[in-house]
Amino acid sequence: MELFFAPLACSLATRIALYEAGAQATFTQVDTRAKRVADGSDFFAVNAMGQVPVLRGDDGATLTENPAVLQYVADRFPAARLAPAGGIERYRLQQWLNFVTSELHKVIFIPLLDPQAPEGAKDYARAKLRARFAYLDHHLTGRDYLLDGFSVADAYLVTVLNWTRSTAVDLKQWPAIDAYFTRLHQRPSVAKAFTEELDLYKEEQARRSAA
Amino acid sequence: MELFFAPLACSLATRIALYEAGAQATFTQVDTRAKRVADGSDFFAVNAMGQVPVLRGDDGATLTENPAVLQYVADRFPAARLAPAGGIERYRLQQWLNFVTSELHKVIFIPLLDPQAPEGAKDYARAKLRARFAYLDHHLTGRDYLLDGFSVADAYLVTVLNWTRSTAVDLKQWPAIDAYFTRLHQRPSVAKAFTEELDLYKEEQARRSAA
Repeated sequence: MELFFAPLACSLATRIALYEAGAQATFTQVDTRAKRVADGSDFFAVNAMGQVPVLRGDDGATLTENPAVLQYVADRFPAARLAPAGGIERYRLQQWLNFVTSELHKVIFIPLLDPQAPEGAKDYARAKLRARFAYLDHHLTGRDYLLDGFSVADAYLVTVLNWTRSTAVDLKQWPAIDAYFTRLHQRPSVAKAFTEELDLYKEEQARRSAA
Repeated sequence: MELFFAPLACSLATRIALYEAGAQATFTQVDTRAKRVADGSDFFAVNAMGQVPVLRGDDGATLTENPAVLQYVADRFPAARLAPAGGIERYRLQQWLNFVTSELHKVIFIPLLDPQAPEGAKDYARAKLRARFAYLDHHLTGRDYLLDGFSVADAYLVTVLNWTRSTAVDLKQWPAIDAYFTRLHQRPSVAKAFTEELDLYKEEQARRSAA
């Protein structure tokens, strides 16, 4: 199993899930700005959308889109209990995965993280931020995780919340989210994944500055 | 089972799925602008995010977020074969559901459909449209559906593609998408759902104009 990732991008969620599962995997770094794989090859040949994560199985088939990749990893390693196996809780997992991917990742953070985004796009994202964070804060109040236990939805959420650090969004405004973010970082899989990718991110930034 | 919907909104996908399944369901209309249910009650009490679809089960529990609701309906009525039961094809379904919900619905159509969105947000959406429609057109070339057979991902995609009509996006630029859109509309469940909701949409517009 091979994960194509970019440092601190949403593919970090899959790294966390793989660490939780104790899975054997190859991690292949991608420069998503230059659309190049670490070996210099064209990343569009791996994913025509040019996005991470891509999970390539041992049969060569690729899977993309975070909620699909995360559910695949969770089901492939059921002992890690990263997703409810079935029943209404499985749909609840999909509900939260979709909230994170659509309302947080795409609606808010894509424009805020993109230096090329017009100011109107950033304003639009900021205007939508408050209702979404309030909704999430309400849900997390009195809860440790999005569902009853840690799941791949938490792996995705903690990855996305990390982007508040580079977009001047102060989590202190939402005490339950802030506590959740701190708590999740104490989890070994999360701490290890973030530490490793932060180093890779700094190296990437240094290479870009030198170029 | 009760579906909270707004005419021609993304909840139309669930109506199509319910028709495909021959399911008994109550359809409860919501004014998502005023955040009122048809009986005048507060829609935020049903869904704190104020969004459709909401599916309320006979036990009163609610499920939100389109990909979760659609997979729930598909699994609840397996005879309709609206989703692969398992295996890699199930993750492929989730991949396409996520492409539609994140890359098309949220990134492109939310800003384009919103009269309040700043011009910069609309420009940003338009700039992302071409790559996403080209990717989709390539996938649909030589295919009748997103997967091997009709699935809930098609119900969602045809619903979203319908928004091109009110956002001046000419599908003729992408022949495979254009043919797909026409073909899907010939499907009885899709034709019935669109016809009914178009009428409800016109009534809603008339009420808003009169107000």
